[in-house]
Amino acid sequence: MRIILDPEPRTAEDIFSEADYQELTRRHDVIVYSGEDRDVFYTRHLPDCDILLGQADMGPDRLAMASKLKAIINVETNFLPNVDYETCFQRGIHVLAPSGVFALPVAEMGLGMAISLARGIHSEHKRFTEGNERYGLSGNQDAELLSGSDFGFVGFGDLGRALFALLPGFRPNSVKVFDPWLPDAHLERMGVAPASLDAVLEQSRFVFVVASITTENQHLLNAGNLSRMQPGASLILLSRAAVVDFDAVSKLVGSGAIRFATDVFPEEPVTADDPVRALPNTLFSPHRAGALESALKDIGNRVIEDIGQIANGLPPISCKRAERETVTRMRSKPIDKT
Amino acid sequence: MRIILDPEPRTAEDIFSEADYQELTRRHDVIVYSGEDRDVFYTRHLPDCDILLGQADMGPDRLAMASKLKAIINVETNFLPNVDYETCFQRGIHVLAPSGVFALPVAEMGLGMAISLARGIHSEHKRFTEGNERYGLSGNQDAELLSGSDFGFVGFGDLGRALFALLPGFRPNSVKVFDPWLPDAHLERMGVAPASLDAVLEQSRFVFVVASITTENQHLLNAGNLSRMQPGASLILLSRAAVVDFDAVSKLVGSGAIRFATDVFPEEPVTADDPVRALPNTLFSPHRAGALESALKDIGNRVIEDIGQIANGLPPISCKRAERETVTRMRSKPIDKT
Amino acid sequence: MRIILDPEPRTAEDIFSEADYQELTRRHDVIVYSGEDRDVFYTRHLPDCDILLGQADMGPDRLAMASKLKAIINVETNFLPNVDYETCFQRGIHVLAPSGVFALPVAEMGLGMAISLARGIHSEHKRFTEGNERYGLSGNQDAELLSGSDFGFVGFGDLGRALFALLPGFRPNSVKVFDPWLPDAHLERMGVAPASLDAVLEQSRFVFVVASITTENQHLLNAGNLSRMQPGASLILLSRAAVVDFDAVSKLVGSGAIRFATDVFPEEPVTADDPVRALPNTLFSPHRAGALESALKDIGNRVIEDIGQIANGLPPISCKRAERETVTRMRSKPIDKT
Amino acid sequence: MRIILDPEPRTAEDIFSEADYQELTRRHDVIVYSGEDRDVFYTRHLPDCDILLGQADMGPDRLAMASKLKAIINVETNFLPNVDYETCFQRGIHVLAPSGVFALPVAEMGLGMAISLARGIHSEHKRFTEGNERYGLSGNQDAELLSGSDFGFVGFGDLGRALFALLPGFRPNSVKVFDPWLPDAHLERMGVAPASLDAVLEQSRFVFVVASITTENQHLLNAGNLSRMQPGASLILLSRAAVVDFDAVSKLVGSGAIRFATDVFPEEPVTADDPVRALPNTLFSPHRAGALESALKDIGNRVIEDIGQIANGLPPISCKRAERETVTRMRSKPIDKT
Repeated sequence: MRIILDPEPRTAEDIFSEADYQELTRRHDVIVYSGEDRDVFYTRHLPDCDILLGQADMGPDRLAMASKLKAIINVETNFLPNVDYETCFQRGIHVLAPSGVFALPVAEMGLGMAISLARGIHSEHKRFTEGNERYGLSGNQDAELLSGSDFGFVGFGDLGRALFALLPGFRPNSVKVFDPWLPDAHLERMGVAPASLDAVLEQSRFVFVVASITTENQHLLNAGNLSRMQPGASLILLSRAAVVDFDAVSKLVGSGAIRFATDVFPEEPVTADDPVRALPNTLFSPHRAGALESALKDIGNRVIEDIGQIANGLPPISCKRAERETVTRMRSKPIDKT
Repeated sequence: MRIILDPEPRTAEDIFSEADYQELTRRHDVIVYSGEDRDVFYTRHLPDCDILLGQADMGPDRLAMASKLKAIINVETNFLPNVDYETCFQRGIHVLAPSGVFALPVAEMGLGMAISLARGIHSEHKRFTEGNERYGLSGNQDAELLSGSDFGFVGFGDLGRALFALLPGFRPNSVKVFDPWLPDAHLERMGVAPASLDAVLEQSRFVFVVASITTENQHLLNAGNLSRMQPGASLILLSRAAVVDFDAVSKLVGSGAIRFATDVFPEEPVTADDPVRALPNTLFSPHRAGALESALKDIGNRVIEDIGQIANGLPPISCKRAERETVTRMRSKPIDKT
Repeated sequence: MRIILDPEPRTAEDIFSEADYQELTRRHDVIVYSGEDRDVFYTRHLPDCDILLGQADMGPDRLAMASKLKAIINVETNFLPNVDYETCFQRGIHVLAPSGVFALPVAEMGLGMAISLARGIHSEHKRFTEGNERYGLSGNQDAELLSGSDFGFVGFGDLGRALFALLPGFRPNSVKVFDPWLPDAHLERMGVAPASLDAVLEQSRFVFVVASITTENQHLLNAGNLSRMQPGASLILLSRAAVVDFDAVSKLVGSGAIRFATDVFPEEPVTADDPVRALPNTLFSPHRAGALESALKDIGNRVIEDIGQIANGLPPISCKRAERETVTRMRSKPIDKT
Repeated sequence: MRIILDPEPRTAEDIFSEADYQELTRRHDVIVYSGEDRDVFYTRHLPDCDILLGQADMGPDRLAMASKLKAIINVETNFLPNVDYETCFQRGIHVLAPSGVFALPVAEMGLGMAISLARGIHSEHKRFTEGNERYGLSGNQDAELLSGSDFGFVGFGDLGRALFALLPGFRPNSVKVFDPWLPDAHLERMGVAPASLDAVLEQSRFVFVVASITTENQHLLNAGNLSRMQPGASLILLSRAAVVDFDAVSKLVGSGAIRFATDVFPEEPVTADDPVRALPNTLFSPHRAGALESALKDIGNRVIEDIGQIANGLPPISCKRAERETVTRMRSKPIDKT
């Protein structure tokens, strides 16, 4: 097949191992965008293109040129508003994003952050390096176990499910999920208990925020409902900062009401004098949970898998597909470069 | 039954919840040691004693007085050399320690430490609080996943098994165990692969040291065999410092060859100027992994469970039993006070 | 929403519990087909119809009338060739089948049949009722365990995955899967080993045939490759008879080379004098594996779930969707009535 | 070590593979009893004997001769009353039985029997061979799933735990256990709910009887409490017939109140005219659940494992140990020959 490769802001080296890249170019006719005028490039190459790897604008005009196009694979892994999705759906052009590659890395990080909060691993490590550590029970008054505990999820997509899959060894007492995009019975079949957002917040010791940001859920977690959390319960924010009212969380955490771990911040990088840096009871992670080289290389793997499916006349399965009903409700920001 | 309660250096409050203590004293005739001369106390009370809760010396003379004695339960949870074990075994006096209460808390901590090492949770948190954090990939070059990885255990008692029980969600590629006190086939039946110590060190990304200290295994891990570990692999020390040659580890860790997390130190508290404090690539935990209030209270639960078993003419099952073959090979130090 | 209900050959009572049916009719405007001329009925009701529950022909003309149509839900659970799929895909009309309801019932049956074959449960029961049972070892020469064994799957859709999910307690030595519609890496992420069909047959003690019948896989299992199976290995046929060359299996099974369990037959009911009835080493199940009342009622549940999704502007998730690439390759026969 | 091998009624060939037997005799000095007068044989060989493999009488006189004896391993796997246990305990002679080898084979059989009862696998197979099978729903009115169901155990030793370990894939709604020899909290730590016998019978769809027979539990299940079972619930008898009042079960099963599967019978072989043979709703298994060649050979493996432990000065771990408190309460009959 003829493939256009224009992965900016990623690079081919970011997402393909050398072996994978060689396989891709050996098996397919790969046209690499290399800095020329994009309109010229696309006007020239879209007519023969079967698959586009990249995030270029694909409005009506470009789609009209691309009469053979079978799939657009966004290797940034976000669905952006620069694609004429309706035309794609009508024509059967798959719009794909291999976002699943981040689920497992972020899930492991989320579990590690939860244990760190529960046991003070990060905070007592810091005290030790500063020479004022506390031995044994003396630093452990607030420690708690995950085993047999109550877990809550806000959102239950790939990431939520990957995290849930790490929990069986802890034999949870309960796992509650708030996800308004999924039917209750569907959640039950996955082995979790569907619940309202309030119930998740009120009845969990560990609340994982793993919802994608959409047009509807900005500040879904705010002063009103966060105050329902149990004293000393842990909030672990793994998806997008905008899902949470950061000021509200900061206030709660600052008062000692709850514990907080976050991998994302409203503005990144966080400014040097941002008061968030001084928050107590908080575990900070500067947007590191998904950013593993192995995860990026896995983008290439999944891309190759679904190109193979399409080449074989089969539906893609390794990437996530844009859905007619929801794609325009997604609100991911384009990345600079992860 | 008549029970002597002399839990020093622990206290009754440490190990019994109020409700448990009341149940114990309501159902049994409990004689509490309260500071008098111990010889006088024991001479007076041993003749009627069914069960001794505590760590008092129980040499031949005292055992001779205790003609009804059915069990000695060490609530410090160590088997110390101040008991005439041979006489106990002959007479069918169970010598017990509810050491299992620490397995799960330490296991969770061990897993949390492993994830922290693999992902730099503790170290990047510290950098963030110091204002020099690195976002995304830039701080993640050495990050690795536990999922699908190779795990090794040095020792596979209660603690090792509790940690192994947390791993299925990570779908390990291999789990190798070195435990010279267990037959290979017994390990296989538990779902792990028996291995030599060298194989464990050479072929694991995460090596958990969970062996009790015995007369035979001081400095079991030393410069000779630790050098077999893979570049960047993680050593997580959870049981006793003496199992490991700390100088050898420090050298390796200092050179950047491996990562290290430890909950124990050769001397505790660590002195202010101990060079260990400056070790890079190290996660420090000041003997906190087991020291949870809930674990201590669980000592009381297990004690009550086995008192119940003995009262019902059944073998104790909730505490670990001293074994004729191994009890004198144990080398735990008496605790000051955890 | 306006819903047409024409579930023939099923009935509303088959697939909806009373409570579910009341909920459906209370929340939606349900038009029930009740025997009139279908062309008249559909001409009248399609223009306002949001969702069609049933298997009626939906060629271009009817679709053209149904300008509001959002979904066709086949409650027989098969995708039949009487729908103009291309138009549906262009217009974004979901074509759905709640076939997932059968996965778990068939999976449990398949596991039960595998254990019965491995241990002779059915055959020794029959001998016992006939008064010629064999005690202990004497009837057990060929018995084998599933624990630690090698499992193979031909096909790995809903059913295969449901069966695989029952196996962890058996700690399989290997689970090999042949499914040409899925990328290898996708199978690996699910925890199974992708394999060629020959490898599945050669290297498994228990081979589960769970592939849907398509235009491409009739007699996929035949004299040529079935002869690769290990002596005494078990073949468990759970999906469609046509996937297997029944004559070839009969010969192999008759010779004692392998064991066989089947829930399906080339012609059902099997005639009284069909020689298959006398096959030794065979466990017969007359198409019973999925036909549970609870499974049929679950069709109603999943239908209601996805109607709810569509009513909320969300993509359906509880039913399987027809896919552009594969729907015309499916070859299920219309059921008479299960 | 010097080992006496007198495994009657088993033979060395029953319990050792050829390779295992060679290893045993190469590493140890094995004296094989071969039919001579037993008193002469034991008088001659006990003084030098370290380990006795067999079921010979070991009363005070013989034990007095056996001054070096370290272990008696009953390879029939029952603790019989022909041993002076008290002397053994005093002297630290382990009395062992590798009974654990039967746990997994019986557990798999028990699960297979439960699925067969729930789905009529054995009964519809029989109908098919008789030419009066029922297709699809028509024979499935009483079918039920194990997934999400309520399970009960009477007894929770090796066998109960092995069966429980097969259940996670079925995601049980509840698992209740009645075992008066185990503390409630101990059961809870294993992940099951301790319950009264009545509660187990009343609240389970599948009741597994896996209790050893003791001096105290003959006819533990009887007309009084069996009547508490739910309509159509399944009773699966896997351990010893005497735990259950067979007449009471027969009456209940005959009336159609419950379903029944049994591997054991009050008298074996069952006489040709025993009315039990005509019981409806019953799955018969003529004492086959544990009697696998592989299980018998595993006796040899476990014996060798624990001989190795003892030779290395370690406690035996692969065989079950007789316990002072309970060994005299066991009431297994000597086997003829399994």
